[in-house]
Amino acid sequence: MSNTYGEIYRFTIFGQSHAPAIGVCIEGLPAGSRIDMAKLQAFLDRRAPGQGIYTTARKEADRPEFLSGMSGEYSCGAPLTAIIRNMDTRSGDYEYMKYIPRPGHADYPAMIRYGLEQRDYAGGGQFSGRLTAPLCIAGGIALQMLDGYGITVKARIASIGGETDSCRIRELLEKVKAAGDSIGGIIECVIEGLPAGLGDPMFDGMENRIARAAFGIPAVKGIEFGDGFGTASMRGSENNDVFCLGTDGRIETLTNHAGGILGGMTTGMPLTFRTAFKPTPSIAKEQQSVDVKNKKPAALAIRGRHDPCIVLRAVPVVEAAAACAVYDALLAAEAAGFNPGSGSFRQGS
Amino acid sequence: MSNTYGEIYRFTIFGQSHAPAIGVCIEGLPAGSRIDMAKLQAFLDRRAPGQGIYTTARKEADRPEFLSGMSGEYSCGAPLTAIIRNMDTRSGDYEYMKYIPRPGHADYPAMIRYGLEQRDYAGGGQFSGRLTAPLCIAGGIALQMLDGYGITVKARIASIGGETDSCRIRELLEKVKAAGDSIGGIIECVIEGLPAGLGDPMFDGMENRIARAAFGIPAVKGIEFGDGFGTASMRGSENNDVFCLGTDGRIETLTNHAGGILGGMTTGMPLTFRTAFKPTPSIAKEQQSVDVKNKKPAALAIRGRHDPCIVLRAVPVVEAAAACAVYDALLAAEAAGFNPGSGSFRQGS
Amino acid sequence: MSNTYGEIYRFTIFGQSHAPAIGVCIEGLPAGSRIDMAKLQAFLDRRAPGQGIYTTARKEADRPEFLSGMSGEYSCGAPLTAIIRNMDTRSGDYEYMKYIPRPGHADYPAMIRYGLEQRDYAGGGQFSGRLTAPLCIAGGIALQMLDGYGITVKARIASIGGETDSCRIRELLEKVKAAGDSIGGIIECVIEGLPAGLGDPMFDGMENRIARAAFGIPAVKGIEFGDGFGTASMRGSENNDVFCLGTDGRIETLTNHAGGILGGMTTGMPLTFRTAFKPTPSIAKEQQSVDVKNKKPAALAIRGRHDPCIVLRAVPVVEAAAACAVYDALLAAEAAGFNPGSGSFRQGS
Amino acid sequence: MSNTYGEIYRFTIFGQSHAPAIGVCIEGLPAGSRIDMAKLQAFLDRRAPGQGIYTTARKEADRPEFLSGMSGEYSCGAPLTAIIRNMDTRSGDYEYMKYIPRPGHADYPAMIRYGLEQRDYAGGGQFSGRLTAPLCIAGGIALQMLDGYGITVKARIASIGGETDSCRIRELLEKVKAAGDSIGGIIECVIEGLPAGLGDPMFDGMENRIARAAFGIPAVKGIEFGDGFGTASMRGSENNDVFCLGTDGRIETLTNHAGGILGGMTTGMPLTFRTAFKPTPSIAKEQQSVDVKNKKPAALAIRGRHDPCIVLRAVPVVEAAAACAVYDALLAAEAAGFNPGSGSFRQGS
Repeated sequence: MSNTYGEIYRFTIFGQSHAPAIGVCIEGLPAGSRIDMAKLQAFLDRRAPGQGIYTTARKEADRPEFLSGMSGEYSCGAPLTAIIRNMDTRSGDYEYMKYIPRPGHADYPAMIRYGLEQRDYAGGGQFSGRLTAPLCIAGGIALQMLDGYGITVKARIASIGGETDSCRIRELLEKVKAAGDSIGGIIECVIEGLPAGLGDPMFDGMENRIARAAFGIPAVKGIEFGDGFGTASMRGSENNDVFCLGTDGRIETLTNHAGGILGGMTTGMPLTFRTAFKPTPSIAKEQQSVDVKNKKPAALAIRGRHDPCIVLRAVPVVEAAAACAVYDALLAAEAAGFNPGSGSFRQGS
Repeated sequence: MSNTYGEIYRFTIFGQSHAPAIGVCIEGLPAGSRIDMAKLQAFLDRRAPGQGIYTTARKEADRPEFLSGMSGEYSCGAPLTAIIRNMDTRSGDYEYMKYIPRPGHADYPAMIRYGLEQRDYAGGGQFSGRLTAPLCIAGGIALQMLDGYGITVKARIASIGGETDSCRIRELLEKVKAAGDSIGGIIECVIEGLPAGLGDPMFDGMENRIARAAFGIPAVKGIEFGDGFGTASMRGSENNDVFCLGTDGRIETLTNHAGGILGGMTTGMPLTFRTAFKPTPSIAKEQQSVDVKNKKPAALAIRGRHDPCIVLRAVPVVEAAAACAVYDALLAAEAAGFNPGSGSFRQGS
Repeated sequence: MSNTYGEIYRFTIFGQSHAPAIGVCIEGLPAGSRIDMAKLQAFLDRRAPGQGIYTTARKEADRPEFLSGMSGEYSCGAPLTAIIRNMDTRSGDYEYMKYIPRPGHADYPAMIRYGLEQRDYAGGGQFSGRLTAPLCIAGGIALQMLDGYGITVKARIASIGGETDSCRIRELLEKVKAAGDSIGGIIECVIEGLPAGLGDPMFDGMENRIARAAFGIPAVKGIEFGDGFGTASMRGSENNDVFCLGTDGRIETLTNHAGGILGGMTTGMPLTFRTAFKPTPSIAKEQQSVDVKNKKPAALAIRGRHDPCIVLRAVPVVEAAAACAVYDALLAAEAAGFNPGSGSFRQGS
Repeated sequence: MSNTYGEIYRFTIFGQSHAPAIGVCIEGLPAGSRIDMAKLQAFLDRRAPGQGIYTTARKEADRPEFLSGMSGEYSCGAPLTAIIRNMDTRSGDYEYMKYIPRPGHADYPAMIRYGLEQRDYAGGGQFSGRLTAPLCIAGGIALQMLDGYGITVKARIASIGGETDSCRIRELLEKVKAAGDSIGGIIECVIEGLPAGLGDPMFDGMENRIARAAFGIPAVKGIEFGDGFGTASMRGSENNDVFCLGTDGRIETLTNHAGGILGGMTTGMPLTFRTAFKPTPSIAKEQQSVDVKNKKPAALAIRGRHDPCIVLRAVPVVEAAAACAVYDALLAAEAAGFNPGSGSFRQGS
């Protein structure tokens, strides 16, 4: 189902922006896994709102309460459920847009799909970016598990509004904020320490797995692995990464245009990908729309508190999505004979 | 599992390049669906090799044999299995590369994952582009079903090696072929006639669904929807597609930067996406590699018949992948109350 | 995953007996479905402890809190999560049995599977019968949805300890209780109002679906449909239910040995099945066991509050399991073209 | 989907009785697994028709052709597809019953579900017992894999028509055959060599897994584990299997009323279950039915070749179903940290 991700490390995200709570229910975390709660909180804090001048002023502690699955600080093998209560909600802020879809938001198709009267529109309902908080719980736990395998996942802002220099980014953000507008950006992610052979052919390759997780983040409109769209302009002789023996006798590639993935499987080189984020659709400027109930044009000025650039807070979310995808692929590989001790696959008799 | 795609229209692709056959087993095609076999064959022929001077000389009729699921020209409700026999195989061609992974191919991670001795390396085994033929069977059937809903899926080459002009593309291909090299490209796809509200939130949005299918095509390294990576440089006020009333009272957007998708769901506007194909890794030039068994450097000149530009034959494959994703989303929407007759969703009582 | 049931109406049950909460997260409930909360509570109350002299004295209000998925009293289309806080827990009661598995309980295999130190053993952890409360939330909602289709699910006690007469059952229970022992029983269930054609061939037939749900109830050791084990002694000429035309022109069978299922699909006749419950393993008598940590024999007298006959409280739980299975099959049939308005399947063109 | 079974060892069965072929596509068999083809054929021969005087005279070699997934006699990691061509089919035999459902068969609900005109009715279509042949391919391979773990699966006839003595069974079969009738029976199955801790809580316990597979066999109407329905008449003090230390220090239970399963997980004791088979619905006697197209009563005498007692040939089919369930649970346990070398689960850090 659509709110569920993963084959072995499998979780379901629930909640709406203004429901009593948001949360996640995780199955498949091995019993006896230790979760460092302080570390998890620190990770969640990187995503939380109210951190800087370019992020929404909404204040939420984002402290998860673990309802099940733990025995002290260790997982007990039962499904792990963690929730975050929604506290600072002002539902009244949204009444005016019940029948008028905000451009760039999920409102219009949600009206069709869930019904004009029944969909939960307050704060974007289930489509709110706030739902990335439970994704960060699942991802934050996955990151800790991957750490035990020596695997790291690091994302960073590659560009905002086409700018890559941090001074110019700052200037751009000031300008955008002052204009009541918003701006998009690109986040890139590097995963290191991966053994070769993770991921599965065809529809469960590392690209498929990571793409499915990454497009679960609101505002992501594109993804590319390694040199991605750049490879479309390259020749085979340029793009092929030739194999060589590393100093430790390990097989490596001289270059890494493939972003560490061949045939959907990891090569043992760093796995790299980039995701494109569209500008936040919530802007202060009045926009043209339609009153869907009364079938007539309507103007709309979005009220409330919003980020002029969601990319700033999305960095840990990309890490979370990637970590969930990689950890799940790793457990799936274990089911297929991968031995974490030796770092290789058990071969048939 | 990794060779299986779809929630309701669910199929498993099997076979290796030099196994007795390749094929597909499809569950979830409604009973009584008529398949126009001549039309399906014409679709498969668009992908088949041996069609032009820039495609591999390997000759395969690619005529599917339907083993089950049909009652005359109608589906009977049982799983539909179709196979294509592999005939023109010359396995001897591949012996020399048993332990030496070809750069850019799946060989190396496949050696680790499946075992140096047991993996089927002839012709690329299960990672061969030949496996896109059964994907085209599943997709060709999906296209016919979508046609019954008034939905069309059309892909075309957007660029090859960065060139968009067809004369310059021809020149480039000549040059690449003469050099024993290969070249990448971009295919764009437009899906029209979609109702609003298809696709599901979070991990089963249209982007997630199409991306999972598209990355199942060998050589795809990136995907973007609507303005994709371009939105990362845009402001919200530019990128937001404002709503308006069409001449027929239908709600539309003035622009379509979103590529027909908001919140993972269709808006009713054309769904557009682009996929980046890396250059075919098989090139005539000798390349550096490693003998994995004996852990020493080895040079490799790839023999056999290969396409200098896979993009030419990949156009129907992209259509097939998109059609499977869209048709499956449509059947999932029917399970969620979508009524194809009225084009809208049944609302709860 | 193991705590998840259903294809379309899909839910995950979480919690342990002495965790902060137990609950359920439901995906696939159509948006706009009205839930009658009073009716749901009345259904949950039938399962709740503390109701009679033969049931455990543990007092829990079993009042679900809905954290997500609702918009007033209607479902909004987002995953619906409901939890029940565990309040009357006395974890100290269970310390003595940390390493000593209780006969008939899940303790021993759980020690092996989840680890002697990490499994949550308090109150039976995730294996506690208390986890049937969230199953009753999912089932109670399914019952209300089925009601809208004119489908009813009714279970009743067929026998306890082999006795079918209610006076003798009462006497037996007195005797068993006085002896500090427990007793098993059989519950039968009848589902009426079903259209013909629900359920799917082979592994998703109505038997497979209901069996998977029913064996999710602790203590169920057998299930039979229609005449079940009795058919093994019958001849085809006796067991075959011949077809006839009912007074309203509807096609019926004269008898119903098949329990309303042929080839895994409903026939339109009442669907009947029976489940065997073993006696509650918790008994007051001292029992022989083993200290698994120290590998030596150990005697065990189970403390705490337990039902001498779980069958009394299991009736609504059987209804809940059956309702989930039937409702999910119904939604799956809608995905396959079943039209609830006409009560028949849409046929292909 | 309904023709697919398994979580890790996952297979889809396809075909109809009179389609060109029947077969199975298996994903998740570890690469490098050796399949002893002679042993597999010997297993399939146990199920094949034409073996004795009480089984159908239809002659089919039932020799599978492996289309994919193999590299010599080893699996290569790609999906394994095997088919059996249908040769001795006489479709004309079935024309007379196109609109007249045979009592006890799937015909009537299949007419409703798949359409009077489009369902494949020849030979029972996809509901034919012939589809147990591909189940035996999947099961026969699973049996060989389990053998490598020291796990054996053995089924036997417990009773036919209530008789347990083989002389009386023979007499009964003669009588039934002479009368043109059929008779049911019970098959019991014992699985030995299992480690403790296999199977998962709630909906993926060993009972749930085996029941889902077993009800995939046509004619199965009931299943019970250990003492099954018998436990409903027992007291806890009788039914509980107390723990003790075996001579080798292994923890065992003195009795095995639980049939080797507690909380859905294996205890390490033999896993036992019994399945009830209804009498074959195909009998020579004329039976009353209805012409569904013309809505009028119709008499029906079933022609063709049929078994008076399917139980005789169903023994290997029960073994196949059980082997698939157990092998899949074993691979799932490996994904959850089970180490086949040590026979125990890896514990968290």
